[in-house]
Amino acid sequence: MTTPNGVVESVVNVGTDLLADAVAEQAVPVTRVDWRPPMEHTEADLAIVAADPLRRSANERALDAMLKVTATLVDVVPASEALDLQPGQFLHAGPPITWDRASGPLRGALMGGAALEGLVDDPEKAAALFEAGTSVSLEPCHHRSAVGPMAGVVTPSMWMFVLEDPATGRRTYCSLNEGLGKVLRYGAYAPDVLHRLRWLGNVLGPLLQTAVRRVRDESGPVDVTGILTQMLQMGDEAHNRNRAGTLMLLRDLSPAMVTAGIDAGFSRSDVAESLRFIGGNDHFFLNLAMPACKLALDAARGVEGSTMVVAMARNGTDFGIQVAGTGDEWFTGPAQLADGLFLGEYGPDDANPDIGDSAITETAGIGGFAMATAPAIVRFVGGSVPDALATTRRMHEITLGENPRWSVPVLEFQGVPSGIDVTKVCRTGILPQINTGMAGRIAGVGQVGAGLVTPPAEIFPEALARLAQLTRSRA
Amino acid sequence: MTTPNGVVESVVNVGTDLLADAVAEQAVPVTRVDWRPPMEHTEADLAIVAADPLRRSANERALDAMLKVTATLVDVVPASEALDLQPGQFLHAGPPITWDRASGPLRGALMGGAALEGLVDDPEKAAALFEAGTSVSLEPCHHRSAVGPMAGVVTPSMWMFVLEDPATGRRTYCSLNEGLGKVLRYGAYAPDVLHRLRWLGNVLGPLLQTAVRRVRDESGPVDVTGILTQMLQMGDEAHNRNRAGTLMLLRDLSPAMVTAGIDAGFSRSDVAESLRFIGGNDHFFLNLAMPACKLALDAARGVEGSTMVVAMARNGTDFGIQVAGTGDEWFTGPAQLADGLFLGEYGPDDANPDIGDSAITETAGIGGFAMATAPAIVRFVGGSVPDALATTRRMHEITLGENPRWSVPVLEFQGVPSGIDVTKVCRTGILPQINTGMAGRIAGVGQVGAGLVTPPAEIFPEALARLAQLTRSRA
Repeated sequence: MTTPNGVVESVVNVGTDLLADAVAEQAVPVTRVDWRPPMEHTEADLAIVAADPLRRSANERALDAMLKVTATLVDVVPASEALDLQPGQFLHAGPPITWDRASGPLRGALMGGAALEGLVDDPEKAAALFEAGTSVSLEPCHHRSAVGPMAGVVTPSMWMFVLEDPATGRRTYCSLNEGLGKVLRYGAYAPDVLHRLRWLGNVLGPLLQTAVRRVRDESGPVDVTGILTQMLQMGDEAHNRNRAGTLMLLRDLSPAMVTAGIDAGFSRSDVAESLRFIGGNDHFFLNLAMPACKLALDAARGVEGSTMVVAMARNGTDFGIQVAGTGDEWFTGPAQLADGLFLGEYGPDDANPDIGDSAITETAGIGGFAMATAPAIVRFVGGSVPDALATTRRMHEITLGENPRWSVPVLEFQGVPSGIDVTKVCRTGILPQINTGMAGRIAGVGQVGAGLVTPPAEIFPEALARLAQLTRSRA
Repeated sequence: MTTPNGVVESVVNVGTDLLADAVAEQAVPVTRVDWRPPMEHTEADLAIVAADPLRRSANERALDAMLKVTATLVDVVPASEALDLQPGQFLHAGPPITWDRASGPLRGALMGGAALEGLVDDPEKAAALFEAGTSVSLEPCHHRSAVGPMAGVVTPSMWMFVLEDPATGRRTYCSLNEGLGKVLRYGAYAPDVLHRLRWLGNVLGPLLQTAVRRVRDESGPVDVTGILTQMLQMGDEAHNRNRAGTLMLLRDLSPAMVTAGIDAGFSRSDVAESLRFIGGNDHFFLNLAMPACKLALDAARGVEGSTMVVAMARNGTDFGIQVAGTGDEWFTGPAQLADGLFLGEYGPDDANPDIGDSAITETAGIGGFAMATAPAIVRFVGGSVPDALATTRRMHEITLGENPRWSVPVLEFQGVPSGIDVTKVCRTGILPQINTGMAGRIAGVGQVGAGLVTPPAEIFPEALARLAQLTRSRA
C-alpha cells in the first residue's frame, strides 16, 4: 500500500476480524437448521420412540446422571485383585467376540498376554491355546467395569488404575498405558513388548500404588475429572492428545513417588525411570480419561426409555454400542477403517479396522467430539483446523446437551456436546466422529497410524428398533 | 423443528460452519486494508526513515537474527557468580530509575531485597539506605543481560537461570519464580516472603543447579525454545499463562532432581517439596520464557538502520523501549494502568502502573501477541475470546514477520507476529498489546490483579525521530 506520505509497504494482511466476528456471532442463538433426511427405514421407529412418554424425562435423567459423576484415582492394583480375574481369563476391548472371528491385533495381544501370564513360553504357541478354548476364556472389559484401549487385553497380572465416584463409591478400571509404537495393545508381542510389560508389573504398578495411596490418604485422591477439565483448555481432546493430562498427573503424583516410593524401598533410579517413562509417553493419561468417561456413562445405564448411548466400543471386527434404555444389550456392525495419517512406510492396506474401548471418550463428549479445543490434533489424525472446529459443532446436533464442566475456550467456553442420542443420529444421519489410533492388521505389527473414523451406520437403526420394540411393549 | 414424520424436537443450533468458513477464508491471502492515519507529527520522520536505503535489509537481518536463536537451559547459579553482582548492587526491571522516582512495588521489592542480603535487619529500615544512595546502587536487569518479572529486583544471593544460545554461546539470565500473590516481585516483603526467598536460595536453587547440570551433561540441556513451541499449542501464551510450560520443565528436570539431587545430599523431602513448589506455581516457566525471548532479541541489537524493537520494559514509573538501529538508548514515557480483573477486594485504585521486563515476551511475538493461541487467558486478564483472536491478527499489522517455529493452531498454524516495527506502529497508530500482572501501588501489598495494557504511544514517535536523525546523519 502507499500511505499519504508516500511510504510504500507490503500489503498488510487484514481479514483480521472474520474469525472474531464468526465467533461472536456464534454466541447469539442461531435458528437456521439444515434439514437432512432420516436414515432409511427409521421413520416408523422414530415416530414410536418420539411418542414414548418416558423418553424426555428419561433422557434428562440419563444425561444428568452422567454429568454429575466425578472420577477420582483411588488405587492401583493387579487385575487379579481389582477384577477377580483368574488365570486363563482374558479381557478384551469392544463387544463379545470369539478367537475365530478375532482380528490380527486382538489375536496378537492375546498371544502376548498368554506369554506374559506364563501360559506359554512363546507367544507364537498361544494360538493353539485360544483355538482349543478349553483353558482360556474371553470377555469384554466393559462386562467387568473396565475399559481397554485398542486390543484392550487385560490379564490377571496387569496393574489397573482404580477410579471411584466419591458420591456413590462406584468404580471403574483400566490398565497402565505402555507407550506408543510396538506395544501389546496394538497387537505387538515381541520380547521387548513383554519386557516392558514385566517392568510395568514389577516396578511402575507397585510404585504408582504406593504414590496413589499416599496422595489419597494425605490430601485426597487425584481428581481425574478436574484434570480433564484443565487439559481440555490445554490442547488435549483426551483421546489422541493426552499431553497436558499426562503432565498434570505427573505433577500430582511425583512428590509422593519420591517420598512414599523411597520409603517403600524403591531405588531412586526406579523412581527416576518411572518419572521418565510417564513423562515420555504423551498418552499415559488416556488410561485415566477412559475409565473416567466409563464411570460417568455407567451412571446412565438402565434408565428405562432413554435413547442415550452409554458405550461405543470396538473389538477390531465389530463395532458395538450400548444404550441407556436397552440394558446391557450390544448393537453391532462391522468396524470401519479409519482415514488418517500413517507412520513411516505404512499405508491404508496395513491397517486393521477400528479397535478399542477408547471411543468411550467420544461417548462422553470428548475425543473427536472436542476436536475444536485441540486443533493441533489435525497434525496427528489428519484433516484441517476448520474441520476440527466444524466437527465439534456438528456433534452438538446429535447430542442431548452440553457438559458445563468441560468447555471449549475457542468456542467461547461452550460445553462439549454430550450424550449421543440414538434418535438424533437416525433422524439426521450424522454419525459420531471418533479420533483413533490404527493398529496393524497383522498380529505382531503394532501401531501403523492414527485417524478419523465413524461407527457403522446400521447399528443406530438397530438400537432404535429395539427401543421402539420396548416402547410398544410398555404401551 | 418438526420432521416429515412428525417428530418434534428442540431446534438444533446450527450456525455450525461460520467459524470454520472464516478460518478457511483466512488461509487465502486477503488484500483488504483498513487505512488508519499515522500518529501525529510523524509524517516527516516516516518519510525519511522509509527512504533509508539500509532499512529493508537491516530489518530482514534483525528479524532473521532473532528468529534463528534457540535458548537452552545450561545452568543455575547465584547472581553474584552469574552477573558478578556485588553486595549493595541491585538490579531492577525496566529502564534506569532512581529511588526518588521509584514506584511502591519497586521500592517494596528493593526493601525486601536489602533485608534478604542482610544490609538491614528489617525491610522498613531499608528506605533510608536507598535515600542516602551511598552504599547501594540501582541498575536495569537489561544492562546485565538479564530480565526480571514485575519489580525485577535481583540481589547477589538470588539464584538465576542461565540460558545459552548454543550457536553463539551468548547467555541471558533470570531469577527463579516465587509464585503468585504476596511475593517480592510484586513489592511484598513480609517475613513469609523473605522466608520463601531463603528457601529458594538454600534448597531450590542448589537442587535445580544439580539437576540442570546432570541433564545438560547426560542428555543435553533442556530446550527452552522447544518447550515454548509446544506450550503455544497447549493454551499458554507464555506471559500470563505458563501452565503447560511449567509442567514440561518439571517433566524434563524431575528425574534428575531425584537421582542427582539425592546423590548430592538433598533429602527426599527437599526433592518432593521442590517438585510440589514448581508444580504448584503455574508461572514458574515465565522466568525461562523471558530470558529465552531476550536471548533471541539481543541477537538483533545494534543492526544499523533497523527499526525493529528489541526490548519493551517497565520499571513501574516509566515504560521504555530499545530499538535495533539505535543502540542501547531507551525511549521512555509514563507507564500506563492495565485494564483487567482484580483479585479479591482489590480495584483499579489499588493498582500500580505497568511494571516489569516481562513485556520482552510480547517483543518476541508471544504473550499478548499470541493471545489467539490461549483463549482461556481471557478468564484471567479480561476481554473476550473474539478479542483474543483479533488481537493476534492485529499485531501482524505492526510486525515485520512471523515466527515459523511458534505457530497458532487455531489460526491454521500461522506463526506468531514477530519483530515490532517502529514505523508500522507510527504509521498505523496500533500499539503493542501486553498481557500483564498488576502490582499493588503501595510497597508491601503484592499482586492485585492481571490485565491488558499498552505502552505510552509517544515513545514510538520518539524512537522514530531518533531513527530519522540517524538516517539523515548517514545520508
